[in-house]
Amino acid sequence: MAIQTRIGPVTDSLSAICEHIQHSTGCKHDKVPAVVKKLLSSWQAKECYEHISPVSIPSHAQIIDIVNQARRILFPGYFTKTKLHASNLEYYIGKETTDLYEKLSEQVTMAIRHDCRRHGQPCTACEEQGHQIALAFIEELPQVAAILASDIRSTLDGDPATDNPDEVIFSYPGLLATSVFRVAHVLYTLQVPIIPRIMTEYAHSLTGIDIHPGATIGPGLFIDHGTGVVIGETAIIGKNVRIYQGVTLGALSLPRDAGERLRNKKRHPTIEDDVIIYSNTTILGGDTVIGAGSVIGGNIWLTESVEAGTKVLLKRPELIYSHSF
Amino acid sequence: MAIQTRIGPVTDSLSAICEHIQHSTGCKHDKVPAVVKKLLSSWQAKECYEHISPVSIPSHAQIIDIVNQARRILFPGYFTKTKLHASNLEYYIGKETTDLYEKLSEQVTMAIRHDCRRHGQPCTACEEQGHQIALAFIEELPQVAAILASDIRSTLDGDPATDNPDEVIFSYPGLLATSVFRVAHVLYTLQVPIIPRIMTEYAHSLTGIDIHPGATIGPGLFIDHGTGVVIGETAIIGKNVRIYQGVTLGALSLPRDAGERLRNKKRHPTIEDDVIIYSNTTILGGDTVIGAGSVIGGNIWLTESVEAGTKVLLKRPELIYSHSF
Amino acid sequence: MAIQTRIGPVTDSLSAICEHIQHSTGCKHDKVPAVVKKLLSSWQAKECYEHISPVSIPSHAQIIDIVNQARRILFPGYFTKTKLHASNLEYYIGKETTDLYEKLSEQVTMAIRHDCRRHGQPCTACEEQGHQIALAFIEELPQVAAILASDIRSTLDGDPATDNPDEVIFSYPGLLATSVFRVAHVLYTLQVPIIPRIMTEYAHSLTGIDIHPGATIGPGLFIDHGTGVVIGETAIIGKNVRIYQGVTLGALSLPRDAGERLRNKKRHPTIEDDVIIYSNTTILGGDTVIGAGSVIGGNIWLTESVEAGTKVLLKRPELIYSHSF
Repeated sequence: MAIQTRIGPVTDSLSAICEHIQHSTGCKHDKVPAVVKKLLSSWQAKECYEHISPVSIPSHAQIIDIVNQARRILFPGYFTKTKLHASNLEYYIGKETTDLYEKLSEQVTMAIRHDCRRHGQPCTACEEQGHQIALAFIEELPQVAAILASDIRSTLDGDPATDNPDEVIFSYPGLLATSVFRVAHVLYTLQVPIIPRIMTEYAHSLTGIDIHPGATIGPGLFIDHGTGVVIGETAIIGKNVRIYQGVTLGALSLPRDAGERLRNKKRHPTIEDDVIIYSNTTILGGDTVIGAGSVIGGNIWLTESVEAGTKVLLKRPELIYSHSF
Repeated sequence: MAIQTRIGPVTDSLSAICEHIQHSTGCKHDKVPAVVKKLLSSWQAKECYEHISPVSIPSHAQIIDIVNQARRILFPGYFTKTKLHASNLEYYIGKETTDLYEKLSEQVTMAIRHDCRRHGQPCTACEEQGHQIALAFIEELPQVAAILASDIRSTLDGDPATDNPDEVIFSYPGLLATSVFRVAHVLYTLQVPIIPRIMTEYAHSLTGIDIHPGATIGPGLFIDHGTGVVIGETAIIGKNVRIYQGVTLGALSLPRDAGERLRNKKRHPTIEDDVIIYSNTTILGGDTVIGAGSVIGGNIWLTESVEAGTKVLLKRPELIYSHSF
Repeated sequence: MAIQTRIGPVTDSLSAICEHIQHSTGCKHDKVPAVVKKLLSSWQAKECYEHISPVSIPSHAQIIDIVNQARRILFPGYFTKTKLHASNLEYYIGKETTDLYEKLSEQVTMAIRHDCRRHGQPCTACEEQGHQIALAFIEELPQVAAILASDIRSTLDGDPATDNPDEVIFSYPGLLATSVFRVAHVLYTLQVPIIPRIMTEYAHSLTGIDIHPGATIGPGLFIDHGTGVVIGETAIIGKNVRIYQGVTLGALSLPRDAGERLRNKKRHPTIEDDVIIYSNTTILGGDTVIGAGSVIGGNIWLTESVEAGTKVLLKRPELIYSHSF
């Protein structure tokens, strides 16, 4: 029998402790040092993971702050208490952008330094690179704002439940996830380590939509509801694509040693312009191409290409109805 | 070929910048003004979205605050540090309710003003309406508390993993989503713009359960686990209905111009009293009615009505077993 | 017709109120006392739920704080601003562990007291038990750190998108959910009421991964993407198991009075060592055993055991392709 009952050693020591609880009158703090010693030795032996280093790791909190600051710049007046008007707008955006640049420089520098150390490389120009990448990033902001405007228009075209762009910006999880993805993707393209994935995981946590920052996504994306959507690292998505909740654009089944072997291969599908994919459908494989204008029904499992202009439906499996139960 | 590689212009400018990084020694801040100018002109040209206006938009943070305050009133003693007892309870609830009324008045007024401006209408009685709607809202609180008590009882009846109402109130995502929905639905019925959807999206973000504030849901709802549940705007759900994770009550496939054409039509199904719907089942269409007392199995795709007292199961698709791989 | 239109009484009173809005010039605050009185009487009549008691209930915020403090101890240097190095590490871990012990003692004591009161039992040794359980918990931390190291290694083996343990610790939702589960499971095993479930629901909220604290899970678990994963209370999972998004390890269909009848029965499946389960597959039933080394394809519904070393695929349901639509 291959299964342990409970996590073995834990249970044993716990039952001893539980017995101890019944009979003792408490020893309390004097057990702390032994625990600390055990933890320290597990890190010294490299059995467990630590980040004990003079080189700082990027800060989770700062990165989330950067994402939200970028959203305040990209959608001015929506996520701030400051009332914006024509006369203070330039000042406001200027200040926010400068501030974003400073913070991002610092975090990118940390991320690069951290990666240099990880690969045992010297870190000769990390700070300079951090500044330049942050600069390249803010120079992309107008382009990102324009693509996000196309995403909002697609949402209004596709959703009968709203005709209000403010509502889309304020409360649509699809737009939130897409916004964070577009920001993270710029940093991914600039080959920033670790930070892009922290950004998209922040959006995943808020929305249930998991878009890898490496995915290539054209303008006009509309993800409705979105919980459970997974878009893999090497997926390519064209213009004006609409995707519903639970859709996976994923990799074909992975062997046990997948990590090593398949890194940097195209593992995820290509979705051409104007495709609609209904809820809970799974499309897999790096060679799978869904041709432009196709409509893929819900609950479908597709691992083969579909030519342009095709509608694909599931021949419904038989249902069994009964009335006595 | 319909697909762009990367988002074209971004890549081009980025590769130029990357080259720049290798050869330059940094220009830094002096690039910020050009970025700001580009953003400003995109807003002036109405190509991108902004909310630059003397009329404030409702505050996300305040609306979430209102939701949590309503929960503190509806479930006193669960989500507060203050120890409540018979002698301070009336004072505590009175203070919280008055405070909720004030905050809600303010946000509803903002939401109505914002909507007046959006439709180019004069805003003659927005503040008065804000007060009256906030008042109507707090007068519904006892009724909402009673319905939520029925939801808790349904949860205890349906879930073998707990017999403790405190645990349900404290940590069940289904009850959290249902509570926020019931609060948001009162405001939806009072025709408050924008705020109800922000509330339910807050719950969606926390639970993965996406209930549109417009849905009509009777007492005794139990949603178990809940991640991926979608309940559409015009869905109607009877009493004592039980729903598991991944269930969609949605619209049939939408044409590309769905946004315009289908607004205000009944697009989502009707689920009568005492129905159970198992995990990952999808029920679609405004004319689809699931008759009282029916049990719908998991993983089913239903677009037709089912008469009362029917059990529906999927005839399992054939599985392929292999032992050499 | 079994369905109410709207939640009956609410609508009626609301339409009256809406009319009122049109004709009145506002009464405002003077309606608050009547609302408060109605709420008070619903609690007195035990129709609604309250926690008005001299015995404090555990604090949601404190419990989340404890979870995050445990993560700071288990993964030192990742989630803290303090730069850790060899000379301050012991001090840092010592301080955090002592602090965790104090906070946990307090919350466990509250949880036990609260449970004593709920069952009408005297609370003779609650505080002493709180201390002893907190002590037993911190003594398990080295063991938990070791199991989590195995989970990280499995993630790196199984995911082609990363080769960086820091990225896994920093931004992988599967590891976050697994970490919180392993912490909560220790408290569950120590029979702490209410707290373990609050912990795992916190992780569920952040990741969409719903692992009951009672599940038994061996080392080397890798959950990829994870949104929609449900692992039930009595599930047993072996070593080095890999699970993708949307997988349910659940109970067979539950009768209406399931709550009472099935508590404390094994209702969820057993997954032996080295099994891979692809996305959106559902495996149900307390007697279902998936033998060691098996691979279960995506989108499958399994309610029967599978012997060791079996590959199970869905015979794909027929698809319908059309080109004129």
